[in-house]
Formats: sequence, structure tokens, C-alpha cells
Amino acid sequence: MNQPLENLPATAQTMAMKGGGYYSQRTRGAKDVIDNAVKMLLDAAQVVPEPSKGQPIRLADFGAADGGTSEAAWRKCIEHLRDRFAQTQIQVTYTDLPSNDFSSLFKNLLGFGSSGPNTFLTDIENVFVNACGIGFHQQLLPDETLDIGFSATAMHYISEKPCTIDDHVHMVGASGDSLAAFAQQAKHNWEDLLLARTRELRPGGRLVILNFGIDEQGRYLGNTGGINMFNTFAELWSNMRKEGTITSDEFKNTAFPQYYRTVEEFCAPLEDQSSAVYQAGLRLVSAKTGVHGCPYRRAFDEAQGSMSNREFAVSYIPTLRSWSEAVFVNGLSGERPQEEKDQIVDQFYQRYEDRVAENPDGHAMDYVHCYLAMEKVL
Amino acid sequence: MNQPLENLPATAQTMAMKGGGYYSQRTRGAKDVIDNAVKMLLDAAQVVPEPSKGQPIRLADFGAADGGTSEAAWRKCIEHLRDRFAQTQIQVTYTDLPSNDFSSLFKNLLGFGSSGPNTFLTDIENVFVNACGIGFHQQLLPDETLDIGFSATAMHYISEKPCTIDDHVHMVGASGDSLAAFAQQAKHNWEDLLLARTRELRPGGRLVILNFGIDEQGRYLGNTGGINMFNTFAELWSNMRKEGTITSDEFKNTAFPQYYRTVEEFCAPLEDQSSAVYQAGLRLVSAKTGVHGCPYRRAFDEAQGSMSNREFAVSYIPTLRSWSEAVFVNGLSGERPQEEKDQIVDQFYQRYEDRVAENPDGHAMDYVHCYLAMEKVL
Repeated sequence: MNQPLENLPATAQTMAMKGGGYYSQRTRGAKDVIDNAVKMLLDAAQVVPEPSKGQPIRLADFGAADGGTSEAAWRKCIEHLRDRFAQTQIQVTYTDLPSNDFSSLFKNLLGFGSSGPNTFLTDIENVFVNACGIGFHQQLLPDETLDIGFSATAMHYISEKPCTIDDHVHMVGASGDSLAAFAQQAKHNWEDLLLARTRELRPGGRLVILNFGIDEQGRYLGNTGGINMFNTFAELWSNMRKEGTITSDEFKNTAFPQYYRTVEEFCAPLEDQSSAVYQAGLRLVSAKTGVHGCPYRRAFDEAQGSMSNREFAVSYIPTLRSWSEAVFVNGLSGERPQEEKDQIVDQFYQRYEDRVAENPDGHAMDYVHCYLAMEKVL
Repeated sequence: MNQPLENLPATAQTMAMKGGGYYSQRTRGAKDVIDNAVKMLLDAAQVVPEPSKGQPIRLADFGAADGGTSEAAWRKCIEHLRDRFAQTQIQVTYTDLPSNDFSSLFKNLLGFGSSGPNTFLTDIENVFVNACGIGFHQQLLPDETLDIGFSATAMHYISEKPCTIDDHVHMVGASGDSLAAFAQQAKHNWEDLLLARTRELRPGGRLVILNFGIDEQGRYLGNTGGINMFNTFAELWSNMRKEGTITSDEFKNTAFPQYYRTVEEFCAPLEDQSSAVYQAGLRLVSAKTGVHGCPYRRAFDEAQGSMSNREFAVSYIPTLRSWSEAVFVNGLSGERPQEEKDQIVDQFYQRYEDRVAENPDGHAMDYVHCYLAMEKVL
């Protein structure tokens, strides 16, 4: 009954390519990473046990945003599950924070959004979707109702900042007590969310989690040998403090609520037999790291001079800005009018663009991910 | 083990009263209706069979908007289910169209919204929520995974308008072929959505549906013996056509995508043994109609002269406008700038307000509902 993994239906292959055309430039990096992880989802689809009679297979995408970047990966996973269990209905739950744009999620899934007119929901029968607008650090699904959980580039967010960071804007530039506090917060969050997922999983169920992290060579997002992106953020923001454009308090209040874990930190609760996660039955199946080159940098390099330095800078900065802007806006005093905040942050990214345009050497936002597969054995 | 229905925990009674204070004036009518139906939900909670071992009880609220008006009713239902099945987890699915504001729904449930800081989700352990942003005319949940389905004041919306209505804006003023086409559309929609719900329900599961409808005396929303609200809409809109403020085409394009069913129409597929719904196993438990007096009218009458006619009109029109405005805006030509559309519609409701202020006698938007309980027996 089962097809070999490399022999997926031709429609799926066609759709994955077609679908790719709809993704905006700005999310290309995220989609590359998810495509790279399709194999892990198919492995999971291959090993999860048959559901009890009459029960659907239940999948969940944690921190899914508008669902656009993972749609093609889910399609392949769902097609493989349907091959194994032809009569079994399938339900997919998408989770994100309450403020997420769930209307865009449902419009995408229904074929009215950026994923194009054909999605697994429009094309495959007996598939159902829903969404949960609550953060993933707590249990979101009833006990033992989840077959495959997935999360891409979401779980580096910690539930709250434990402290400020004095001379930087990200924990990658923190040290001493600040770094220790961020590490501790991230450790608790990781254990809590893995415990929550373990309760949700059926025995034999799988988790596939791709996360920003720090690899064995110390590389992380925007720091892969060239110019360090987070150091550039910190330096430009610090310059604006020195000039008096922003205050010292505002600089101090600016910090990404994120933590980039090392592979060791990711794996610790899965390998320490005394940890609550291990004792609840969650086991590591595989862990690896991977670097995906910045697509904007690649386009610039491949243009071989037909793209100007400024053109590269103009194409490159929006992808940084899309996920970082809120951090800088929120660092500013609440007493400033919104318009003033916007002007300051516009100026900040303009300086980043000018710096890249002046000399683009070494500027690139390469993705560094840790890819984890886990299984609930109890 | 089971408590008598009238003996709910004191906390629930307190919360229902407290919760009431948070509801805005504009939704008071809807909440009154749902409170009135709590008894039907408790009856359902009393009779649904125990779930299979390890399975949660699953509830669903179809066409739930931001969940605010039904929160207190769900709390009572959940508390009663927890009394019956102490160890069973409970999941509530909220459905609405993709364009619904699901962020408000989740914020409300998490205690950050109009339902106040305490909701069944914040106060009761082992309850889980999710949302489905797809219209309820199709199946939204996997087969036999629903224990109690609920819907309040939502299923009078039909999936599409089958035709225009020449000299009115609502099917209550349609006749001949137009009325027949709306009736046919509503019949198909009702059968389709009941069939979808029947597939979703576990055997022994219940549906509780409260819907705008036409009662045994021919009464319906805003038509309970005084001045007919929909006729007033049609007359004022028609006046604007006569004056040339709107075109004949615009008048013709203006029609509520709604159908008010009679009790007979509601019950037909549940009593006709040859219908697909009946054959799928759905049975009528009870059907009744009820009229809830307009809270704005009541406040005006109780003020005994201390509220001016204008004050009543100013308090009354916004509740009509909140759910009807989009219909009039959408009736206008797409070639008009938005600002012009807004001006026309402002003028329309101003005229309604002026008419009420001039002589408030007979103006009231009384709710007329049909209350249906159904059970899946196969």
C-alpha cells in the first residue's frame, strides 16, 4: 500500500513547484527551510501508528503565522498519510499568538490568499482545519490527541524577557547575569513547551521542530562568517543613543524576546533521564543543524554586477525589517507620538541600508537552524 | 454524581451576573436570547453519552463572532459536563467566516477582552479552545467528533443571494419568484448544514440552534405589532432612489443575504422520514418560538418621560446599524468613492433616526427566535 518516499504522486510535485511561485521574496528563506524539512515530516508520516477506529489523524503547526510557508510541506505529509490510511480523516490545527492574523490563515487555506488557488484543503477530501490563538508554551490540545506536531522558526521566542540587555539588543551579544537570565528563561520555556507537546501527543506520535539556533561552529542567523547582523543592529542603535536621538533607557529597553539555543541546549531535556520531559516519554530521534544562504545575497552575487550595491541594499533590508521592526518601535518611550517613533525607526533602517549600499561585502542574513525530530514512546 | 440543573455552583451564578456587566448595550439582546437557551444546553449536557475512554468531550459554537455573547452559557454547560464526567477534558471549537475577527475571540477567551478577566477558559482546568474560519454550510469537523453543537442568531444567513428583490431589501418583503428563490436557497442551505452537523455529531450528540425566524403569529425581527423595521428600511431606501440619491440598480442590488424560516420550514427535514437529514439520523427533540423585547425600547418606556424622543432614537439606531450597514454600503455602485458611500449611508440612518425621534410610537427591534433542539440517534 505504501509508496516509497521519493515516489510521491506527480500532482504533489507539480503543486510544490507551482506553489513556490506564489511566495513573496520576503518569505523565501523560511520556505526553503521548511522544504528542507519535508523529509522529516514524511518520516513522521511513515511511522506514526494507525489511529483508533473512527478517529482522525491530527496534525498541528505551532507558531504557524498565515500558514503560507508550510502549506506545501503539509500537503506532502497529508498525501503520504492518506496513502497509508486511505479511509482516515485528517485534521490540522494551526497555532499562533492571539494577535495573529487568522483571517489570512483561513483565506490562504481556502485558496483566496498568497498560497494560490490550490491548497491541500481545496484539493484533498476529508481534511479539516482549525486554529488556536494561544501561545505554545502551554498545552493547547487535549491529552493524546496529536499524531504529528510541527514548528518552523517560531520557538526561539521566549514567553517574556527576564531582564534588559545593557550594551546590545539581542542575547547573542549579552554576557554575565543577563545572558544567564535569558538562558534560564529559555530553558524553562523549552522544557514547558516540550512537556505540553508530550501531553498532547499520542504514544508513537512525532514532533518535528526547526528552530533558529547556534550551530557547532557558533554560527547563527546573520552571523555566518561575514558581518554580524545583530552587532550591526546594536551598533546603529547605539549610535542613535550617542547622538541623543534615543535615550539610554530606550536603548536598554530594546531587546529581542528571543533565545538562540545550542544543539546541546535543545537536546538536554531529551537526553537527561531525570528530566520531566524524558520521564513523560519524549525521546530524541535526530538532531542536526543546517545553514541556508540568504536568498537576497544569492541574487546579488548571481547578478554579477548587473545589480548595483544600492539595489541590493534596497532588496535586502525589508526582510530584516519585517521581523525586527516591532522590537525597536517597542523599545521607544511610550511618551513619544507614534509618528515620531516611526521616523526614528525609518532613520535606523535607512542607516542600515546606507551602510550596506556603501560596502555590501559580508552582508547576508543566512539562516542557521537546528532540525529536531522527537517521538513519544510511552 | 449529577447535580440538579437548578443547583449549579454558586461561582457560576456569580460569574454570569458579573459577566453581564461587561456586555455592551449593543449586544444585550443577543445575550438575553442565549441566556434564555442555557436550559437547552444544560439539557444537552445532561443527556450526551460518556465519551470513549481517553477522548475529550467536544463542543462547537457555529457562527460565534467574538464569542462574547455565548461565554456565560458555555460556562454553565461546561460546569455541568465536568460535574458528570470529572476526569474528561473538554474542547470548544468556535466557527465563523474567514473574515471574522478571531483575535478578538481568543483575547476574549483569555480574559483580555469584552468578556472581562474571568472566562471558562481562565477559570476551569482542562478546557481547550480552537476556531475554524470556514462557513457552516459545509462540514467543519471530522466525522463523529462532536458532542454538542450550538448556534445562536447566525443561521438565517444564506450562502448566497439567489436573485435580487425588486421592491424591498429583505425576503420578508419579497413575493412571487423572488420569494420562491430565496425559500429554495434557504431550504438547501438548511438541509446541507444539518447534514454536515449530523456527520460531525457522535451518536447521542445534540444540536441546540437558536435562529431568527417567523413565529406562528407571523412575527419576526422588528415586526411584532408596531412599525415594521424592514419595511422602514425599504421605504427610506426607496425614497433615496426616488430623489436620485441612489440609482434603481443600486436599490435592486440591496438585499440582505438572509432568510427567516418558519417553524414548519425549520422542522421539515427533521420530520420528513424520506429526507437525507432524517435518514442520516438527526431527530427533532423540541421546537419553540420566543419573543424578546427590544432592550432600547424597554429602557425608553421605563424612563417614563425622563428620556427624550431624540435620546431614544440616538440610542436605538446604532443596534440596527451594526448588522445592517454593510448591506446598504454593498448595494451601492463600486464606482462611487468610499467617502460618498459613507455619506449616503450616514444620511440613510440619520433619516431613520429622525423618523423615530419625530414619533417613537411602535419603533422597537424585538427579537423573534425559533429554538430548536436535535439529537443524532444513529
